[in-house]
Amino acid sequence: MSWEDKIRKVEPYVAGEQPREKNIIKLNTNECPYPPAPGVQAAVEQLAEDSSFLRLYPDMDATPLVEALAAQYGVDPDRIFVGVGSDDVLALCFLTFFTAATREAPLLFPDITYSFYDVWADLYRIPYRAVPLREDFSIDPADYLPAQGAENSGIIFPNPNAPTGLELAPAEVERIIAGNPDSIVIVDEAYVDFGGQTALPLLEKYDNLLVVQTFSKSRAMAGARVGFAIGSKKLIGYLKDVKFSFNSYTMNLPAIRIGTAAALDTAWFEETTGKIAATRERFKAQIRALGFEFPDSRSNFVFARHPAFGGAELQKALRARGIIVRHFEKPRIADYLRITIGTDEQMDAVVKALQEILAEKA
Amino acid sequence: MSWEDKIRKVEPYVAGEQPREKNIIKLNTNECPYPPAPGVQAAVEQLAEDSSFLRLYPDMDATPLVEALAAQYGVDPDRIFVGVGSDDVLALCFLTFFTAATREAPLLFPDITYSFYDVWADLYRIPYRAVPLREDFSIDPADYLPAQGAENSGIIFPNPNAPTGLELAPAEVERIIAGNPDSIVIVDEAYVDFGGQTALPLLEKYDNLLVVQTFSKSRAMAGARVGFAIGSKKLIGYLKDVKFSFNSYTMNLPAIRIGTAAALDTAWFEETTGKIAATRERFKAQIRALGFEFPDSRSNFVFARHPAFGGAELQKALRARGIIVRHFEKPRIADYLRITIGTDEQMDAVVKALQEILAEKA
Repeated sequence: MSWEDKIRKVEPYVAGEQPREKNIIKLNTNECPYPPAPGVQAAVEQLAEDSSFLRLYPDMDATPLVEALAAQYGVDPDRIFVGVGSDDVLALCFLTFFTAATREAPLLFPDITYSFYDVWADLYRIPYRAVPLREDFSIDPADYLPAQGAENSGIIFPNPNAPTGLELAPAEVERIIAGNPDSIVIVDEAYVDFGGQTALPLLEKYDNLLVVQTFSKSRAMAGARVGFAIGSKKLIGYLKDVKFSFNSYTMNLPAIRIGTAAALDTAWFEETTGKIAATRERFKAQIRALGFEFPDSRSNFVFARHPAFGGAELQKALRARGIIVRHFEKPRIADYLRITIGTDEQMDAVVKALQEILAEKA
Repeated sequence: MSWEDKIRKVEPYVAGEQPREKNIIKLNTNECPYPPAPGVQAAVEQLAEDSSFLRLYPDMDATPLVEALAAQYGVDPDRIFVGVGSDDVLALCFLTFFTAATREAPLLFPDITYSFYDVWADLYRIPYRAVPLREDFSIDPADYLPAQGAENSGIIFPNPNAPTGLELAPAEVERIIAGNPDSIVIVDEAYVDFGGQTALPLLEKYDNLLVVQTFSKSRAMAGARVGFAIGSKKLIGYLKDVKFSFNSYTMNLPAIRIGTAAALDTAWFEETTGKIAATRERFKAQIRALGFEFPDSRSNFVFARHPAFGGAELQKALRARGIIVRHFEKPRIADYLRITIGTDEQMDAVVKALQEILAEKA
């Protein structure tokens, strides 16, 4: 066997384009249109006072960040795990919690969902089954219940779901968790902070639940790479063991310091997420008037299609007008565009561009 | 099977203590005693000018950092992989290159070596064999040759080795690589910059070689988490596929910016590593005079024992005097201490403390 035969070969996840041009309206990777909390600016300035701290290894437990999150969410620090964005947290979760899956009892997640799930499953050779969403893109909890034939070794879904933006109601989320006492259920709440309802209160009742969130969207910190999970002390302990078997120091000192500042600024957080949710509702009304159809998003994006256009066609037309949105060339959703919610001004520019494109077509 | 039975259980690596007390001489984790390059301070100040960049995802290819390394080492950028410290790079290497190992053809590494290797092997359930060093702690290349019975599916060793500090000569390194055309050989050069000889020139002849280095020691950037690998375009391509199947954005924006600044400042790098190597030689002479024995380290630490003391005993005596060094309670090396090379002043303080401890014992 040659050395090349011994290599683990995988098909990686492809993230949204990060354009280098200026004067682009970038609505393709669900970033926050506003700068981070004022405390973050202060924390970066403090870093600049003396860079000699960089010579030492960072706090491997990211203690101040964990303590800030513990205070904000009212849980013990030993129930919190932090990582390099929620992708890092989720990648370690797949390795920790899902590698015992089998073909008979696979990992379950929706067929239309975050496109990284099947990539992680392939990376770790985890057997999985993609469970079709209903016609209206909603999750049917019954599809995830072993009592109804859905044998599994683990479950993960985003709530709100990506890229549909649709939320599963807390009682439905609980039905999935309660119906799977022998599986770990991960609720990926990357988009929960824009008016969604978190599963965190369910942690009091279920020790097989893990809730994952991120600073990339609602805290305007995609560039810092901060994500976290909250679960039972036992689950978090196992996750930490795997993390400390992978890399002792995943979060660098700048990430810990500015992440802590971001976590502490709850006023900025409430105001900014509220502002984005309001812009979303405004944008929904504007594009509905143009004939667009979309699931009722609770996230910081809208997943929309227009009867007169294919998704790729519309994406291209917007790109020509300096607006970047995300399109997935996949079954069931090829007609849709995922449009991140920016500022009111940016969304007005999108609406104006869409009006022009529709007028040209007519 | 309960959810707990489905979890991957591992015994994590335990990194050296990061004390919170002040006035400690910290020589236990091989950090650089000097602050990072002046360009790094400038880069952190530039970050502080406007933290709004944090709202966007970072460049997932860390392009400026890769290009700075490419220029410094004279290789194409597509032969360079960067990560969150060399531990991140190595963890991904184990997953990419070594999971095809079997009991009959295991992964090979020295019995006395970086303590993370067996942890990564356990994490990914990789069969391995720890190959005993010679009595003098040197590596015998013959022990790694399939032609001499050492069937394997991959090889990794640090050069200089950790925690011994001993260097394997380039011709001996080449003997291992040349004798294993069907295995990937990783030379972990975390400690090569203090007078050691790199295997990088061998990359022109061998496409199964990967060289891994870090910014944590010789560039005073342990707190920033920057490491890298250089290899054939093919090896780097496979490694990137796995990385992008794990987390698109592992390096945050501050790490990319300050890492780039550190990579560009070659004058600081030459001066600082030279200074540390000089202090090491001075320290060797001082402790030899006190009766210590040690392999001839080419790294930024010395691995030493004294006939009159056990390692744990001596570590404790130094700790009582405010000096922290590393001790491994392991077979063959329990009598040794790994002492990081600090400034001349710090090493003089260590020598003074050792003199006192020896005098008390006498």
